[in-house]
Amino acid sequence: MEIAWSSPQRRKPAKWRIAIDLMGCDSAPAELFQGVLLAGMRSSDALQLTAIATAQVCAQLVELAERHTIPGHLQLAVAQEAIAMAEVPTAAVCRKPKATLTVGMQLLKDRTVDALISAGNSGAIISSARLSLPPLPGIRRPALLALLPTAGKMVALVDAGGNLKNNSATLLQHAQMGIAYQRCFGGIAMPAVGLLNIGIEPSKGTLPLKEAYAALTAHAKLSAHSERGFTFVGNVEARDLFEGHVDIIVADGFTGNVLLKAVEGTALFLLNTLRGQLPPHSSLEAIHSRFNYAESSGALVCGVDGVVIKCHGNAQGAAIARAVADAIAMVDKGLIAAISHELSLEQHPEDMGGSL
Amino acid sequence: MEIAWSSPQRRKPAKWRIAIDLMGCDSAPAELFQGVLLAGMRSSDALQLTAIATAQVCAQLVELAERHTIPGHLQLAVAQEAIAMAEVPTAAVCRKPKATLTVGMQLLKDRTVDALISAGNSGAIISSARLSLPPLPGIRRPALLALLPTAGKMVALVDAGGNLKNNSATLLQHAQMGIAYQRCFGGIAMPAVGLLNIGIEPSKGTLPLKEAYAALTAHAKLSAHSERGFTFVGNVEARDLFEGHVDIIVADGFTGNVLLKAVEGTALFLLNTLRGQLPPHSSLEAIHSRFNYAESSGALVCGVDGVVIKCHGNAQGAAIARAVADAIAMVDKGLIAAISHELSLEQHPEDMGGSL
Repeated sequence: MEIAWSSPQRRKPAKWRIAIDLMGCDSAPAELFQGVLLAGMRSSDALQLTAIATAQVCAQLVELAERHTIPGHLQLAVAQEAIAMAEVPTAAVCRKPKATLTVGMQLLKDRTVDALISAGNSGAIISSARLSLPPLPGIRRPALLALLPTAGKMVALVDAGGNLKNNSATLLQHAQMGIAYQRCFGGIAMPAVGLLNIGIEPSKGTLPLKEAYAALTAHAKLSAHSERGFTFVGNVEARDLFEGHVDIIVADGFTGNVLLKAVEGTALFLLNTLRGQLPPHSSLEAIHSRFNYAESSGALVCGVDGVVIKCHGNAQGAAIARAVADAIAMVDKGLIAAISHELSLEQHPEDMGGSL
Repeated sequence: MEIAWSSPQRRKPAKWRIAIDLMGCDSAPAELFQGVLLAGMRSSDALQLTAIATAQVCAQLVELAERHTIPGHLQLAVAQEAIAMAEVPTAAVCRKPKATLTVGMQLLKDRTVDALISAGNSGAIISSARLSLPPLPGIRRPALLALLPTAGKMVALVDAGGNLKNNSATLLQHAQMGIAYQRCFGGIAMPAVGLLNIGIEPSKGTLPLKEAYAALTAHAKLSAHSERGFTFVGNVEARDLFEGHVDIIVADGFTGNVLLKAVEGTALFLLNTLRGQLPPHSSLEAIHSRFNYAESSGALVCGVDGVVIKCHGNAQGAAIARAVADAIAMVDKGLIAAISHELSLEQHPEDMGGSL
């Protein structure tokens, strides 16, 4: 069942079709829906938004939707149930093919929509994407790509929590996806890659990290003069991330997730403490909003053929509106096709050398 | 060879004998030695300080030492060589029994000094401590215990980078050492323990984390009404660490090290950014000094019978002076004996239940 609102003038087909799963996160569906409405009001009549929720929730949102007029097309899609934060990801995805998340992923798979946004269970989003969408060339498991604000640039962190597995092949794939993303979407021709470690020496860290260090060194050398060249700056400690030397920081999903949340927690703790002690100042507010993940867009599920954005579990409406804007930009730039192209170059036998 | 300076009035034996390894870190030995002198000037004639360096460095420091008068006893001990940051820890310790670090550890082992401070190679410090000093009851491998500043309290992070191994037995030992530390040194009768994870649900994270979750739940229940009672608050995400709900955060050494450095890096990045944009304010300076690890004391090597403090690789003189003050307090409070006592209670068969 769908409930749809369209402006009467609208006739032409939508240029961007974005689905938003409103369920299964720590914020109320109505809060996320406010973001959907905000995105709709900010955009043109070329945008079609599909918000997915259970029947009960949809019933509550109808009135809210009717109070707003948006230039594009807005519809509510009803799903049977939701996947909760505490559920075991793959089991939940398999057991609930009619959950808001799985229904949204099906819409993306069928190309009924161009992008899916969810603030729900990260593991379930990754599992559902992996089970429903074709993998990008050579990618075994999707990862989460999140952006960390640093001095003057946004650093792409891969993996920010997509999966726990940690071998050198996975780490290399994280690097490749980060490079492809920064080249295609960040506009950086020769991105600089760092490996998150506990010391800068090549001998530091776990065996997968040492192997990934050697492989990235070899890869960077091999590709130096090709269209897929990148710089490998070596191991990077978490405290040096902010100095602006890297465009991509590679980590396994567990460590990347801890890093992301440590940065977030420290920043908000400090800024909230200072806010209570310092006179109001716009610099404080500006930096607060850069680090406030409840207001920032989200992480890209990287490695599948489709734009899937995972928002923060505490995402507010503003975050959803930003995620919609990001999804539109990714669709416009053909990000997934570009990453896929870059990864397919990577698979070319003569490029592989002996380094993998 | 030793070069010693004593105030002529001094006759009584030293109450606190602290050795400081001046070599093998990113700061210059003279910088660390300034901290030794500062500690000496701040303390009484009951303090004996032994700074260990190579002959060449000692020669450079003599003049510096002679310019200062301290109430206690100061001596320079000459060692043959230093262990560098990039060296493989255990191999370096075994190959260099006459390095500044290994000589210092020998002094501690022989009870010639009461505590050893070093800002050198973390792995080498841990290895040297493990090879030289008796282990505390039940502890297989020492860990690093570092303090994280949060709202209103210091949280003990164990392991902050002592070793990479990550099984549930190790995580439990980290918890036990953190509990013992906070009870003995932090004065917290019923400490709250959290497990660093990527989500709060018991199903989150790696198998060792899930096993540690179950074991800590059982242990907390079993010990609830005994003198070694503690609260287990469950999994904690890095962003929630600052809310003041935990006294101890348990992690494997790799993740703990990333956490520590992420907190440090984020805090310094933000504070330096704000400092350039905000008018001078004492709150900014106060919070900066709380988070500036180059000025803060260091991490305790936990799990061996001896006070060993590992300072930051970039430690400034102020950090060394603080580490000396901490070492004095630890010796005064009999911290190691108290932790050892607590751990030996833990080993009592009827206390063990089936939870390990």
